[in-house]
Amino acid sequence: MALIVQKFGGTSVGSAERIKNVAKRIARWKAQGHDIVVVPSAMSGETNRLIGLAKEVSAAPSPRELDVIASTGEQVTIALLSMALHECGLKAKSYTGPQVKVLTDSTYTKARILKIDDQRIRRDLAAGNVVVVAGFQGADEDGNITTLGRGGSDTSAVALAAALKADECQIYTDVDGVYTTDPRVVPEARKLDTITFEEMLEMASLGSKVLQIRSVEFAGKYKVKLRVLSSFEDEGEGTLITVEEEKSMEQPIISGIAFNRDEAKLTILGVPDLPGVAFKILGPIAEANIDVDMIIQNVSQEGLTDFSFTVNRGDFNKAKSILETSAVEMKARGVVGDSKTCKVSAVGVGMRSHPGIASKMFRALGAEGINIQMISTSEIKISVVIEEKYLELAVRVLHKVFGLDKE
Amino acid sequence: MALIVQKFGGTSVGSAERIKNVAKRIARWKAQGHDIVVVPSAMSGETNRLIGLAKEVSAAPSPRELDVIASTGEQVTIALLSMALHECGLKAKSYTGPQVKVLTDSTYTKARILKIDDQRIRRDLAAGNVVVVAGFQGADEDGNITTLGRGGSDTSAVALAAALKADECQIYTDVDGVYTTDPRVVPEARKLDTITFEEMLEMASLGSKVLQIRSVEFAGKYKVKLRVLSSFEDEGEGTLITVEEEKSMEQPIISGIAFNRDEAKLTILGVPDLPGVAFKILGPIAEANIDVDMIIQNVSQEGLTDFSFTVNRGDFNKAKSILETSAVEMKARGVVGDSKTCKVSAVGVGMRSHPGIASKMFRALGAEGINIQMISTSEIKISVVIEEKYLELAVRVLHKVFGLDKE
Repeated sequence: MALIVQKFGGTSVGSAERIKNVAKRIARWKAQGHDIVVVPSAMSGETNRLIGLAKEVSAAPSPRELDVIASTGEQVTIALLSMALHECGLKAKSYTGPQVKVLTDSTYTKARILKIDDQRIRRDLAAGNVVVVAGFQGADEDGNITTLGRGGSDTSAVALAAALKADECQIYTDVDGVYTTDPRVVPEARKLDTITFEEMLEMASLGSKVLQIRSVEFAGKYKVKLRVLSSFEDEGEGTLITVEEEKSMEQPIISGIAFNRDEAKLTILGVPDLPGVAFKILGPIAEANIDVDMIIQNVSQEGLTDFSFTVNRGDFNKAKSILETSAVEMKARGVVGDSKTCKVSAVGVGMRSHPGIASKMFRALGAEGINIQMISTSEIKISVVIEEKYLELAVRVLHKVFGLDKE
Repeated sequence: MALIVQKFGGTSVGSAERIKNVAKRIARWKAQGHDIVVVPSAMSGETNRLIGLAKEVSAAPSPRELDVIASTGEQVTIALLSMALHECGLKAKSYTGPQVKVLTDSTYTKARILKIDDQRIRRDLAAGNVVVVAGFQGADEDGNITTLGRGGSDTSAVALAAALKADECQIYTDVDGVYTTDPRVVPEARKLDTITFEEMLEMASLGSKVLQIRSVEFAGKYKVKLRVLSSFEDEGEGTLITVEEEKSMEQPIISGIAFNRDEAKLTILGVPDLPGVAFKILGPIAEANIDVDMIIQNVSQEGLTDFSFTVNRGDFNKAKSILETSAVEMKARGVVGDSKTCKVSAVGVGMRSHPGIASKMFRALGAEGINIQMISTSEIKISVVIEEKYLELAVRVLHKVFGLDKE
């Protein structure tokens, strides 16, 4: 008998019918004698509908009031799911984040969880209830309603699992686990039985959007056993996200190939290489609220350097025009950019102990005639920026060369 | 400078556009230097949508969970209205019932307000905010979300006005005040400048559904100055609902003619007139959850009596068949019924000090050939049950005979 926290995403609870199916699934777990805490998202589309209403009233709605309206989405789902559990003959009680209480800071629309009071939940579990807690929301010290930002229900579930010292936190989504890469690009992609938190973080931040990054960080920090499962299939163990030590000794060197199509590259050429140059270039970009991903500064020649970075493709034009202004001010030689690039990364904790992974990767890409425009590495990841048209080819080649298509 | 509580119904906040208009109206009051607390209902149709969702999941949803889902309707409106007030350049903050906190008992779906904490509201008013409080909802001692039942936002507004000792509680609706009778039946009907709580209670319970009855009781009990106004017209003072002593000395004897079309009459004939007979007849009716309105027992003749009562027309067939069973058990002579009746009432505190009102009423109806089937009186009301086809005629005749069509 275990204590399990189960999180169901918006698609899984997208209609009355689906909510009933989720209830039946929970009933099967409950019948095995487990204690269950459920964290549902808002019904798919509902959060967008609510924010759309807000935009009809105000072009720039107050973040505090946005949280008041947005949090109703999950509140509707917890009530419906509790009713569906009653229909399955189970005892169930719902709680909003503020009711629990999930204490957060006061950063409306992207609050951080500070503490969770587990008293009510434990009392209701002890009385035989399935406890249904609204994801995505909490309240600050003064009782103001807060939300955790898009995808915040994952974080709610993990934080609840940590507070309750749950045996497992199960995230039900529309995929049945984490794959070595996107099966739509590489049909041979395999579901991973386990992946480490660090790898998952790199995969997630690179665009394999199975889990919200913060929830993975949280799970790693509080050692929550996290599992990704399909909410539409009854079979399968999903993918267990685990700490490195628990992974099998014979782990593969590379766990997966991640990619991000939405990447654009900008270079400012011939900048005088003086202290503070990086800030002078990126300061105005940050002020314009543009997220910068990879940053590379080439070795300086004759006191001049080239400085490159990548941004979301949607921000390309805005970033380019800011950079052109900066180039004039800094007396740089000019600005070049390419909005048709993409990023491909090999991720794996195994590369820590295996030298030569980078050269293997570069040789494989070179053999296919794929030119590497930028390179960036971390301890467990190597990323390259290449022309977008080579994306699928590069992913397939790397998936194969690192043996990911074999059991 | 006054403290005013303003309540806006679902139609008044039925769209983004209407919410903006409500905000502009509030801004005008605020510009006059008043402190304003606003209590909006859910957008029209929203509560029904939410309850419809619940019914899709469960035929008999848990009352506790119904309140969790239903309370989101007002939560959406308070956020939108606050945003709209910001757009008007005002400071505004929204609170749900549980946030305030509006403490209620635990009778889900029809909870009663026990106490309102005015601390947050006073603090925010002092800081120059318009405070927007969700109507219809509260929380019990244990923090469970409760709702006050249909129309409960009126009660929320009056209770808030009482707790804050507000100078006035304004109820904005789709009519511009309380009328001497329904203008659709009598074009000469006039808006009343004032009406007493007692009269308003009789008018409301008789089908002039301007205000929720409980809110009127509440206002009477706590001496809240209550005013009904149109939310679609900018002019007009509406109708002030006041305590009797404050009414002008030259008040009319009769304030209004109320009616209820939805009335059906049942009579059990020749019942042995023994103690407990009324309970034997009405007990099974009450058990079947049928509301009984008027009850009349005729003087007994030769140990037998006729016993009549009225029910909602929708309950007529059910009540008749229950009564027929009772008639057999009680050895009564039989059961007769008429589902084509209606009730017409003259209401006015003035009749306390003016004898002869009843006979004036009966004579006027008799002169038009309208047969009176049942009569029931209270201190400030005389009601008659008549054939439904005479309803409009009776209302017009009484409206005229009591001088209500004259200023």
